[in-house]
Amino acid sequence: MAEDKKITKSLTRRNFLKTAGTAAAVAGLASSGVALTPWKAEAAAIPKKWDETYDVVVIGSGFAGLAAAYEAKKAGASVVILEKMRTPGGNSIINGGVISAAGSPMEEKQGVKDSSELLLKDMLTAGLNLNHVELAKMVADNSNATVQWTMTELGVQYKDKLSQEGGHSVPRMYSTHNQSGSAIVTQQLAKLKELGVEPKTQSFLTQIYRDADGRVKGVQIRDKYVFPNADSGKLKNIKARKAVVLATGGFGNDVAFRTIQDPRLNADFPSTNQPGATSEALRESLRIGCTPVQLSWIQLGPWGSPDEKGMGLSPFFAQLCAAMYGLWIDTKTGKRFVNELADRKIRADAIIRVGNKCIAFTDASGYAFGQKAIAEALPKLMERGVVKKYETIEEMAAAHNCPVEPLKEEIEKFNKGVLAGKDAEWGRYLQKNQKPLGPGPWYALRLTPKIHHCMGGVHMNVKAQAMDIMTDKPIPGLYAAGEVTGGVHGAVRLGSCATLDCLIFGRIAGQNAAKDKSWS
Amino acid sequence: MAEDKKITKSLTRRNFLKTAGTAAAVAGLASSGVALTPWKAEAAAIPKKWDETYDVVVIGSGFAGLAAAYEAKKAGASVVILEKMRTPGGNSIINGGVISAAGSPMEEKQGVKDSSELLLKDMLTAGLNLNHVELAKMVADNSNATVQWTMTELGVQYKDKLSQEGGHSVPRMYSTHNQSGSAIVTQQLAKLKELGVEPKTQSFLTQIYRDADGRVKGVQIRDKYVFPNADSGKLKNIKARKAVVLATGGFGNDVAFRTIQDPRLNADFPSTNQPGATSEALRESLRIGCTPVQLSWIQLGPWGSPDEKGMGLSPFFAQLCAAMYGLWIDTKTGKRFVNELADRKIRADAIIRVGNKCIAFTDASGYAFGQKAIAEALPKLMERGVVKKYETIEEMAAAHNCPVEPLKEEIEKFNKGVLAGKDAEWGRYLQKNQKPLGPGPWYALRLTPKIHHCMGGVHMNVKAQAMDIMTDKPIPGLYAAGEVTGGVHGAVRLGSCATLDCLIFGRIAGQNAAKDKSWS
Repeated sequence: MAEDKKITKSLTRRNFLKTAGTAAAVAGLASSGVALTPWKAEAAAIPKKWDETYDVVVIGSGFAGLAAAYEAKKAGASVVILEKMRTPGGNSIINGGVISAAGSPMEEKQGVKDSSELLLKDMLTAGLNLNHVELAKMVADNSNATVQWTMTELGVQYKDKLSQEGGHSVPRMYSTHNQSGSAIVTQQLAKLKELGVEPKTQSFLTQIYRDADGRVKGVQIRDKYVFPNADSGKLKNIKARKAVVLATGGFGNDVAFRTIQDPRLNADFPSTNQPGATSEALRESLRIGCTPVQLSWIQLGPWGSPDEKGMGLSPFFAQLCAAMYGLWIDTKTGKRFVNELADRKIRADAIIRVGNKCIAFTDASGYAFGQKAIAEALPKLMERGVVKKYETIEEMAAAHNCPVEPLKEEIEKFNKGVLAGKDAEWGRYLQKNQKPLGPGPWYALRLTPKIHHCMGGVHMNVKAQAMDIMTDKPIPGLYAAGEVTGGVHGAVRLGSCATLDCLIFGRIAGQNAAKDKSWS
Repeated sequence: MAEDKKITKSLTRRNFLKTAGTAAAVAGLASSGVALTPWKAEAAAIPKKWDETYDVVVIGSGFAGLAAAYEAKKAGASVVILEKMRTPGGNSIINGGVISAAGSPMEEKQGVKDSSELLLKDMLTAGLNLNHVELAKMVADNSNATVQWTMTELGVQYKDKLSQEGGHSVPRMYSTHNQSGSAIVTQQLAKLKELGVEPKTQSFLTQIYRDADGRVKGVQIRDKYVFPNADSGKLKNIKARKAVVLATGGFGNDVAFRTIQDPRLNADFPSTNQPGATSEALRESLRIGCTPVQLSWIQLGPWGSPDEKGMGLSPFFAQLCAAMYGLWIDTKTGKRFVNELADRKIRADAIIRVGNKCIAFTDASGYAFGQKAIAEALPKLMERGVVKKYETIEEMAAAHNCPVEPLKEEIEKFNKGVLAGKDAEWGRYLQKNQKPLGPGPWYALRLTPKIHHCMGGVHMNVKAQAMDIMTDKPIPGLYAAGEVTGGVHGAVRLGSCATLDCLIFGRIAGQNAAKDKSWS
């Protein structure tokens, strides 16, 4: 066998820096069409000169990033928040504004028996037990305290009625006053502003600097970046004296990366996410040694409508009016096809299985509930024609090419179950004020699943430390929180648990980052 | 906000090499208990001096590694095969020796209608359409040609009867003469020896050298390594003039890594894998920029027995005698609980669902089939008491605490289905020579799922090039094949498709590695 003892000319430092120096210039476009930084030997590329220095550098300005920045700042750290888009808030600001609290005062008031153990059980059941239990437990155990904290500390206002998302055993969801995550983000931004911290928008992460000693020491960004233009903005090096917090969200809108993990989810699939929900920061974190976990579990929201873009407002109606007080129907058969309060995966898979021909509908009293619960959303849904009104069942059935007799039989069967106190066929939780359906008018929307949440991401521990692929130990100087992490939700995230996850681990990340040792 | 323009003292080249030099000395033990190399800036650590040089460096000596080495050598490349264990063959040498061929001469002889399209369809169905279709298609399209190649080129001998594994629409499996993958591995090793290539055993990969230009240029190993001792052996640098081929298998026996991806699969779970089926090489490949794909999909073999260790011989009986000619029974109820020829995930999940209290049994004629099909295995299974013989159904039921009347009814129901030509309840494929069950004697084994195969791994393309996490383009100088890769099988691998996958992509990797451009 050939053997070659020739000494290979190794890179000189000068050559090396030349290579590193051109790396930015050749920064490639991955197939996702967003800016990505190609392979680089970042250890040797630690900048000699930093443009700016902070104790804690937070990447991303959704729930998690803002919570981390707030806690770090309160703990005395200097903080910067870097956000690649023009406006802060990420997906959080367009989120539906529901958040679970197990054992809350409102549950007590409404006579709902609940506990953090029950919430954990629901999370693990939906998660197919792929959840990292210690992380899920952290979310369940801190759910009520965190919701109360958003009120007392941030001043977030909620409606005075609990609601229920699929997969939850009981109604335990608080809804923000405007039925949007913006109610929380706005308060987070206001509180941070009081402390002198405002997100620097159009700041795009191009590199995490991890040194030869294994520590993350800062980041490279493109300042004044214009998404998704890879060449826009000016490179800057930001030193993190204590730590970097990765809170960059999911990759639901990154067709290239999501189809590597789940090839079904091609460009034809609609998504509820904002355009910036792409993979660059996750990829960069993997490049510098973070551990990937469960990346192929990507959640489809079952309550989307093909008649509006993005997340839209359809989930409010599909969930609060139709899943709680009405029915979901396969219009080919006129029959129910799933427990309308099953978890998101079960429902999305069921919709795909019956060929994406379904409606969610309710009667006059379900609509009346909606008028209280989602007072802002319902008129808009009606105006936009996403939800339509029908005087009779016949009219509704005809509008959706649904056979009317089977539909009537199905309603009759459900109504008998309501009177008997049990949904025998599908096992749906019946509301305390559940009444038989009818009379009309009837209200319906068309359903389609939309890409919604990435359960997978980087592996973190209960201290929100990002874990090293080589040692299963924390990467010094790097924390992670929110949708960019994986393991909390396992295979399927329950609705109203993302905000909790982000706030809880964001706060932990910020607190621990501020306590991290400084380097210089 | 604090800002610090102080220039940070960057690492000098000398300091850097000092760091890199000590890295080996501090090589850590991950929680998996196997040797792992911690974070290192490998670009600057490209050795000045290589201990050995080859055109193609193959890591791993299972089906894929040996196929790659064989093709590379035949194409004129100098080749080394590095194997960390004391003996070559990995999991392949203890594999069950079944391999699918769609459209084979034996299918024609036995009147089985099949096609590569049907095999692909079966793969995608089992894979829940998470398969990378272009990779799965490569396997399906080349199945028959590859099986024929093992005969004509390698001289592998097969039995003269096809069998059928769960999830396959038709019987299309060739079985090696000794019902073991060793029949293939032995021939691969013999052919390689003729060409002057023998695997270097006890050669443990500690580092893949990826240079600042992005190219993989060689590897660091521990020579004379004694698994799993991290400090054993001596470090050596091996230059790959053309390419490195990663064929290091799965991580089914790595409790730490598998529980990050699927926390259910703790140390209590038995595995069919050899002890060396751990994650070090996969971790190292991710560290240098490979793209992870579907790591959380880990397959449990549904046909294990708690009465023997490892893979054992139970699959032969559970599959060929019981799943094809007998029944699988939940002993709590005496009833069937799954289509005995469903895919592995469906069956393993079903066994877990019914509380792991199941038997697989057959009658005298199913046993007689086994005596022909698995002539070597059956007597051993009987001797070891893994399969037990019972003169009557009553005796068998009593031995497994199974209610006998429901069991008799179940057999009667199945028998009626056989006579009617249709398994109405479970939709199982009925064999051409399927007969009603009975009379005895009866033969049964206890079932338990065992961790068997990692569907996920590094992302490769159809040329077996490992793909870069940052650019979705091939990593120059790095190929991957076999169980270390992901995407071919999606969520669930069909039985008898792993050997195909390994041989097909191993060969492609070897051919392309030999054609790769040289560097110096």
